Amino acid sequence: MFESAELGHTIDKRTYDKDVPPLRVALLDAQMELSKLAKFPVIILVGGVDGAGRGETVNLLNEWMDPRFLQTHGMGDPSDEELDRPMMWRFWRELPPKGRAGIFLGSWYTWPIINRVQGRIKTADLDQSLERAKRLEKMLTDEGALILKFWMHLSKDKQEKRLKLLEKDPKTRWRVTKRDWEHFNMYDKFFAVSESVIRHTSTAEAPWTIVEGYDANYRSLTVGKVILDAIRKRLDDADTKKTEVSAPPPLPSIDQLNILKTLDLSQKIDKKDYQAELEKYQGKLALLTRSAKFKNITVIAMFEGNDAAGKGGAIRRITGALDARYYNIIPVAAPTEEERAQPYLWRFWRHIPRRGRVTIFDRSWYGRVLVERVENFCTEADWMRAYSEINDFEAQLVRHNIVVVKFWLSISKDEQLKRFKEREAIGFKHFKITAEDWRNREKWDEYEQAVSDMVDRTSTTTAPWTLVEANDKNFARIKILKTLCEQVETMLKKKGIVIKKMRPPVKA
Amino acid sequence: MFESAELGHTIDKRTYDKDVPPLRVALLDAQMELSKLAKFPVIILVGGVDGAGRGETVNLLNEWMDPRFLQTHGMGDPSDEELDRPMMWRFWRELPPKGRAGIFLGSWYTWPIINRVQGRIKTADLDQSLERAKRLEKMLTDEGALILKFWMHLSKDKQEKRLKLLEKDPKTRWRVTKRDWEHFNMYDKFFAVSESVIRHTSTAEAPWTIVEGYDANYRSLTVGKVILDAIRKRLDDADTKKTEVSAPPPLPSIDQLNILKTLDLSQKIDKKDYQAELEKYQGKLALLTRSAKFKNITVIAMFEGNDAAGKGGAIRRITGALDARYYNIIPVAAPTEEERAQPYLWRFWRHIPRRGRVTIFDRSWYGRVLVERVENFCTEADWMRAYSEINDFEAQLVRHNIVVVKFWLSISKDEQLKRFKEREAIGFKHFKITAEDWRNREKWDEYEQAVSDMVDRTSTTTAPWTLVEANDKNFARIKILKTLCEQVETMLKKKGIVIKKMRPPVKA
Repeated sequence: MFESAELGHTIDKRTYDKDVPPLRVALLDAQMELSKLAKFPVIILVGGVDGAGRGETVNLLNEWMDPRFLQTHGMGDPSDEELDRPMMWRFWRELPPKGRAGIFLGSWYTWPIINRVQGRIKTADLDQSLERAKRLEKMLTDEGALILKFWMHLSKDKQEKRLKLLEKDPKTRWRVTKRDWEHFNMYDKFFAVSESVIRHTSTAEAPWTIVEGYDANYRSLTVGKVILDAIRKRLDDADTKKTEVSAPPPLPSIDQLNILKTLDLSQKIDKKDYQAELEKYQGKLALLTRSAKFKNITVIAMFEGNDAAGKGGAIRRITGALDARYYNIIPVAAPTEEERAQPYLWRFWRHIPRRGRVTIFDRSWYGRVLVERVENFCTEADWMRAYSEINDFEAQLVRHNIVVVKFWLSISKDEQLKRFKEREAIGFKHFKITAEDWRNREKWDEYEQAVSDMVDRTSTTTAPWTLVEANDKNFARIKILKTLCEQVETMLKKKGIVIKKMRPPVKA
Repeated sequence: MFESAELGHTIDKRTYDKDVPPLRVALLDAQMELSKLAKFPVIILVGGVDGAGRGETVNLLNEWMDPRFLQTHGMGDPSDEELDRPMMWRFWRELPPKGRAGIFLGSWYTWPIINRVQGRIKTADLDQSLERAKRLEKMLTDEGALILKFWMHLSKDKQEKRLKLLEKDPKTRWRVTKRDWEHFNMYDKFFAVSESVIRHTSTAEAPWTIVEGYDANYRSLTVGKVILDAIRKRLDDADTKKTEVSAPPPLPSIDQLNILKTLDLSQKIDKKDYQAELEKYQGKLALLTRSAKFKNITVIAMFEGNDAAGKGGAIRRITGALDARYYNIIPVAAPTEEERAQPYLWRFWRHIPRRGRVTIFDRSWYGRVLVERVENFCTEADWMRAYSEINDFEAQLVRHNIVVVKFWLSISKDEQLKRFKEREAIGFKHFKITAEDWRNREKWDEYEQAVSDMVDRTSTTTAPWTLVEANDKNFARIKILKTLCEQVETMLKKKGIVIKKMRPPVKA
């Protein structure tokens, strides 16, 4: 795998001086075009062996390229805010928008590799990490991102030679740290692990480029040319967006029976019982969310449902039990300009709360497989792949001790009509009813099919859907509060939820 | 000051039930209009005495108002990322955009009040904090924000009574903490300090509303009505934007002499000396930024200058000495949609780095008094007040051990012409020259006047301007590196730069 990167590639000064100026022109031109079209982002990961010139290459790229459209992110030690969220959050928050490039010095491979080298995780854990990384990259490329992964390689001899050279020169001595020599002593182990990582994660969408790092001219020119060619190629066929569907279609509805139709919407609760239950579960939720252990977990409650199903009222029954300082409601509306320049899930990732907090989404990332599907706001390929992207997303949340509670509030078509009319009649509710609501109602069956497919494909053991019979608002509110309490309680009882704040290594 | 809030205000249930529905209709209507016009944000601060119903009121507002346009922020303990930045950063990051309302439970007054009550700061320190808070609020209201400050008050008797009542009921017992009783024992001191704070910070732009907190009906109805009236009033005269200039005009130029004309632009450095100096200062900067103490400070270097003055080249000479993981370049371009919905300085606050980092702004917040002034992108009133807003902003940075280095790169009109022509000729530089550059050049004298005023009004002892003679690029680069090294060194030598991570109190 590394054979070609140990051949001793060099580029002489004359060739370098001749090749660099046109390369720079072409890179700048490509960047200008990229920025003007703003069709896709460029994500550049730089990893590799210590002393192989990762930092120098990145500095040089900053010199060659237009810094207005390029951001470099040194993914060093994560902050407490980052440690309080799933590992990928720190990458999501730094993703370049469409039209820009982002260089990550240190990537989602850094931590898994070093942890494996140092024996903190097993091969099976490493494999799982790689699987997740691949799925992330697949999603990013499906969203249009161009991902370039560079691995700066040095043979063992060359690494030793280079570290010594750097140490000898007073001007570069500071670059060599004790950690570099520690890593050098583990070269063989590091070699074996990274070889395996590269092999497993060189996918069609995002292959690794292994670059021999010893000769600066060769290294720089190679990286520059690979970046240029990749951007150029994507710019030239930017119009040929993939639209083919790669997943099999959801179960066809041939008998009009679906999971929503099995709900007993006539269930209700009488007023006295409601008051008693409300107090009981609000009190319980209040205590649970104020317990000492709650600081180690996070709650994300998410509400979808028919229009007028009572999401707002149910949410307020939850927030009534919570400390206003520690919860947040995110009403999901049309994405902003900054959000539209990012992959679909970015606008939800940005609202993932810290530990000890509750975030309630009023509508959610399921918009893609509901309204966007039914209204054709995205292509079939987009919503078809969304199911597994969403499952991956939620799995990451749950892995980080986040309670993910998903409610679908279901009302009958008749009940909806009644409520629409009521809303039109009552003053302070009339803002809630718009022409759009009436239009959506006409597509009742299509929405029902979409909901049914959604539940089939995204109700997982770790993040199950709770279907809520909501014709009786009080019944729905109690079921929601009860479910939420149960799921929070289960998580609080889980062993080992006190996450060790593992600091990832600084380099890799 | 609190007399009216100790009269024992109550609203009976009948009046309450009669008044609430129309209030809710009106609040929702006002919110809808606010959101549609998106002309200004509403910032609601809620403070006061423990047990006076701050949390309940906020929960109720969430119930009455449309949660899609309302966000509540519990300003509890700051995160490490927040502690690593000036105190106000955490408020800036949560400011509501135009058209929305944000409720802050805990405000920029919380920490100063409690610190004074507990004797951690002196009256003089408190006064300074209040002065800064007032200036912040003045700036926010000048930017169009509607600020509503509520102080929930209880007399000493009533506070005791209320805390005991809450404790007695098993359903509300969790609300009363040990800290609440501790605060109660300091009631008199707390009373005196908060009385003084309220008196000093009840400004014309943002007066306090003191609300007696004992009777829930009275309290809720009062807060709701105040919010409604204030939003309504602002909506109704939203068109009458203040445009009068409140500050005296900058020094008129009557003899064509200005600070830029006094620069000796003929200064240069020969190539050999340049190489030696470059290595010297890059090496020095490399060591300084890698020293252990550097983790306690932050560097913000900011570049302004004539078009083609060589900002990019100078920046790259700095970044060449830095560890790519710890610096960031922020190219300042047109604001995004999310940025346009916020006060002017928001888009710079969001990029304030953590401690131990370097952030370089390629163009900056001075755009307002340069390009926006000359091109009439903002009103005279806007750029006139910007000088003191910027001084306040930078003073906050410096107070937090941030080295603020501000460079103006100055070239002569002839030199600029030469470079423009050169850029048009050389392939990989032609992207750097646009029709806009030629247009700006025609306004040379106006820009010169703007720069001169800017330096006069914003070159402070804490954040001085460094004017850089940049006709010779190498001379400029050395002067910049040298200045940067000196200023970083000075800050590193400052005593007590290891900031204690003081946690503010949770409530007030």
